[in-house]
Amino acid sequence: MDTKSRRDFITTTGKATIMGGLGLGAAPIAAEENKLDNTFIHHVFFWLKNPDSQEDQQKLIAGLRKLSKAKTIHLSHIGVPANTNREVIERSYKVSWLLVFKNAADQDTYQTDPIHLKFIEECSMLWEKVVVYDSVQAG
Amino acid sequence: MDTKSRRDFITTTGKATIMGGLGLGAAPIAAEENKLDNTFIHHVFFWLKNPDSQEDQQKLIAGLRKLSKAKTIHLSHIGVPANTNREVIERSYKVSWLLVFKNAADQDTYQTDPIHLKFIEECSMLWEKVVVYDSVQAG
Repeated sequence: MDTKSRRDFITTTGKATIMGGLGLGAAPIAAEENKLDNTFIHHVFFWLKNPDSQEDQQKLIAGLRKLSKAKTIHLSHIGVPANTNREVIERSYKVSWLLVFKNAADQDTYQTDPIHLKFIEECSMLWEKVVVYDSVQAG
Repeated sequence: MDTKSRRDFITTTGKATIMGGLGLGAAPIAAEENKLDNTFIHHVFFWLKNPDSQEDQQKLIAGLRKLSKAKTIHLSHIGVPANTNREVIERSYKVSWLLVFKNAADQDTYQTDPIHLKFIEECSMLWEKVVVYDSVQAG
């Protein structure tokens, strides 16, 4: 949703709430601002066997697009390294796969979801190395 | 927003739309499902100088909580390693700092935001190593 549609949506909802007298105006909108709160973050970085093959990179991206339909995934982002380039930035990977799960149990389910196993079967020959960072909200 | 409130919110919005005849029912809700589309992902992992110091870890987390108020940040998540433990999982870092920006320009602005510079000034003595992964949506 771009900023404008989002504003329209909120405004519309606000009006509707007043119209309906349901008193739900502020809370859901405020909650949406912290959408990642209490989520389980699963971030995977892929290095390819053929690091210069755009074809292999695209195959992996296509596989991840199919995988993104897995039911327990809350939010997903398929990425490639940005243009930023400082000493602390790791940019040798070829594909980033960021998943947000509502909780750790959903991530466990995802690991054995048939769509995930199928992805591994179809795409694992493409990568040389995978590094995974799983994190939960700091207490 | 938990699943129930979200459902209630959507249902309420749906009803309100019908009441108001505004015709905005489906699109904004569908768009929200892909909240990370076209965003700029900035994921930072911190290793501490005193890796066993829970106090230092908490100091860094407190600093990040203040930093999360930076205006160009769209979504943020302050994390610690999850309990998952497989060979491919990197779990030696002590704090994960995941930021979602609406675009690359917002991330550029964040880098020189006074609140960010203040965070570096106040907290950089805590960390030994930082690794950053910046990624943009795959084409």
